[in-house]
Amino acid sequence: MSLRVGVIGGGQLARMMIAPAVELGVELSVLAEQEGMSARLAVTAVGDYRDADTVLAFARDVDVVTFDHEHVPQPVLRALVDAGVAVHPGPDALLYAQDKLLMRARLAELGMPQPDWAAVGDADELQEFVDAHGGRAVVKTPRGGYDGKGVRVVTSGVEAADWFAALAEDARGGALLAEELVDFRRELAQQVARRPSGEVRAYPVVETVQRDGVCAEVIAPAPAAGDRLADAAARVGVAIAEGLGVTGMLAVELFETTDERILVNELAMRPHNSGHWSQDGAGTSQFEQHLRAVLDLPLGDPAPRQLWTVMVNVLGGPAEGALDERFAAAMSAHPAAKIHTYGKDPRPGRKVGHVTVAGDELDDAVYDARAAAAFFA
Amino acid sequence: MSLRVGVIGGGQLARMMIAPAVELGVELSVLAEQEGMSARLAVTAVGDYRDADTVLAFARDVDVVTFDHEHVPQPVLRALVDAGVAVHPGPDALLYAQDKLLMRARLAELGMPQPDWAAVGDADELQEFVDAHGGRAVVKTPRGGYDGKGVRVVTSGVEAADWFAALAEDARGGALLAEELVDFRRELAQQVARRPSGEVRAYPVVETVQRDGVCAEVIAPAPAAGDRLADAAARVGVAIAEGLGVTGMLAVELFETTDERILVNELAMRPHNSGHWSQDGAGTSQFEQHLRAVLDLPLGDPAPRQLWTVMVNVLGGPAEGALDERFAAAMSAHPAAKIHTYGKDPRPGRKVGHVTVAGDELDDAVYDARAAAAFFA
Repeated sequence: MSLRVGVIGGGQLARMMIAPAVELGVELSVLAEQEGMSARLAVTAVGDYRDADTVLAFARDVDVVTFDHEHVPQPVLRALVDAGVAVHPGPDALLYAQDKLLMRARLAELGMPQPDWAAVGDADELQEFVDAHGGRAVVKTPRGGYDGKGVRVVTSGVEAADWFAALAEDARGGALLAEELVDFRRELAQQVARRPSGEVRAYPVVETVQRDGVCAEVIAPAPAAGDRLADAAARVGVAIAEGLGVTGMLAVELFETTDERILVNELAMRPHNSGHWSQDGAGTSQFEQHLRAVLDLPLGDPAPRQLWTVMVNVLGGPAEGALDERFAAAMSAHPAAKIHTYGKDPRPGRKVGHVTVAGDELDDAVYDARAAAAFFA
Repeated sequence: MSLRVGVIGGGQLARMMIAPAVELGVELSVLAEQEGMSARLAVTAVGDYRDADTVLAFARDVDVVTFDHEHVPQPVLRALVDAGVAVHPGPDALLYAQDKLLMRARLAELGMPQPDWAAVGDADELQEFVDAHGGRAVVKTPRGGYDGKGVRVVTSGVEAADWFAALAEDARGGALLAEELVDFRRELAQQVARRPSGEVRAYPVVETVQRDGVCAEVIAPAPAAGDRLADAAARVGVAIAEGLGVTGMLAVELFETTDERILVNELAMRPHNSGHWSQDGAGTSQFEQHLRAVLDLPLGDPAPRQLWTVMVNVLGGPAEGALDERFAAAMSAHPAAKIHTYGKDPRPGRKVGHVTVAGDELDDAVYDARAAAAFFA
């Protein structure tokens, strides 16, 4: 009998679990939101992940349930746990990936380095925060944001009036999250794998380059990151994984400030775009590691296989029908590039694939990865 | 639109094409012999590969047809080609993987180094061959043998009397293949990828260790293989791929003789057990390379990523239900080992998985790979 993992959500993160599942001999099944999604090869059910009966029925034939995204509602997660299903990460951990206000409060309790922040219930409270932070602030909806959505930089409280109005109509009520606008040198990401029985492995901290709020490029490990910075990032990642009881992969998005501190920006409790480099650059890819972790198997080696690995996202994608020509041209011009596509229809700004290049020369790897990805733009 | 590859045969070779297909964004479909086979995740049809209508229907929705095995009959292959289907390798090449007598004759024309051989039509002819070769010979049925089946070492012509009797009843008639029993130091395998437009890439020659006629271990590259030997093996591989018009992966099994020659033993025109090391040890795995080659995409880098990669087959497999415990124990004791299982029911002698270990120290890699594989025996 094979080990069986069920993934809720049919996007590219679920898709990229297929390869290591097949290689390990793990039976992967996927509950997809609709037909034809990126992970369609492993889809065994199509339905609404907000419906407890749908999710319970899907979970019946697997050993552990995990996720392609963090959007499964808490009552559904609790119903799974109550039914005796192994759920990794569990609801108590996922809560902090689902609600940024709860996350900020819990990280504060854990003593983690963070931007200044506050829960603001109306435009006046936000204005106070703005006034206290040099006339600017980042405002975030605590729930439902991703890839820059639900995030706004404001210089006055009224600029979030529409979000406060929406909050007032929401039966759950609540507040927005205000954060200081951090003067950062660059963005980093720290990934950590943790299994239910406690073993933790940290990947090297990487540099992430965002464009329009979306991850564009990743360099692993982060260039010019000395031991002090790398150790600090790994310590923060491990402390959060342990403090929040995360099981599976955790990604901690970090700011490196101009005064050489690191501050926690966001959390994701699943494989993450910042870790795609590991497919071709680490001893164990984040997707294999996630499967091992949620199955409570011994974790694999996260160390880089080469000095540098560069990952460049393909956003938008080529025109209909052009894929084969692009493939041939990109592979021919950039033989060192590993090309990954997600089987998604192209749409402006949509993540449809990525390219990795590993090597001993960072400049060459960056050039090759960007140039190969450009064939698909 | 994704590129679409259809594989005839649902065994582990088809299964191991799934991971690179998913990563590249190639849509893989499989025509399996029965339900529940190793490649079941990608199975889109179940049926008899000897039936032209079944195979033609399967081929309708793919860009190219390729194979998990060499057993599709020539009339079915010709029907595909006549229907305009791209078939790689094509029938003209596959013929030489299907019939060992035709293979020997063609390799002789190409001037390839071979054991002495002859087509023998009856026990008397075989006896003559035995007498001329030190009183011993290897006899092979030209068609249908694998993993040591259809191969017999004899010291007299009558020892193959049953096979000659079967031949006499076969409407196709024909002869058996007699070969000299080669005094070899060890066995090697040379893999080559070739695409329809002509590009050829050779993998490093590897050492293969057989037990009871079945591949047990592979060391890549072959230890103590100097440039002369490695170049000779690569030249033979490339010459055969080009001479026979092979498209996709070709494996050439070789004897290294005690007098330092190499002689061609067998051919396989598909990914091959001797190349499983490449999944974790080469710039491009043989499974990705096969997909690239049959799609006529530029070939990837076949160079090893580390000094040594060792592959050990798991034969038989663990008792029912024991897989998860074995996994955890093997991974914990041998963290450097990459464990692959095929989702097959255990049966004595059956190939159900393999383990690879890559590293700078050959002794360590051999030890780790054998010890990790032993957990599953």
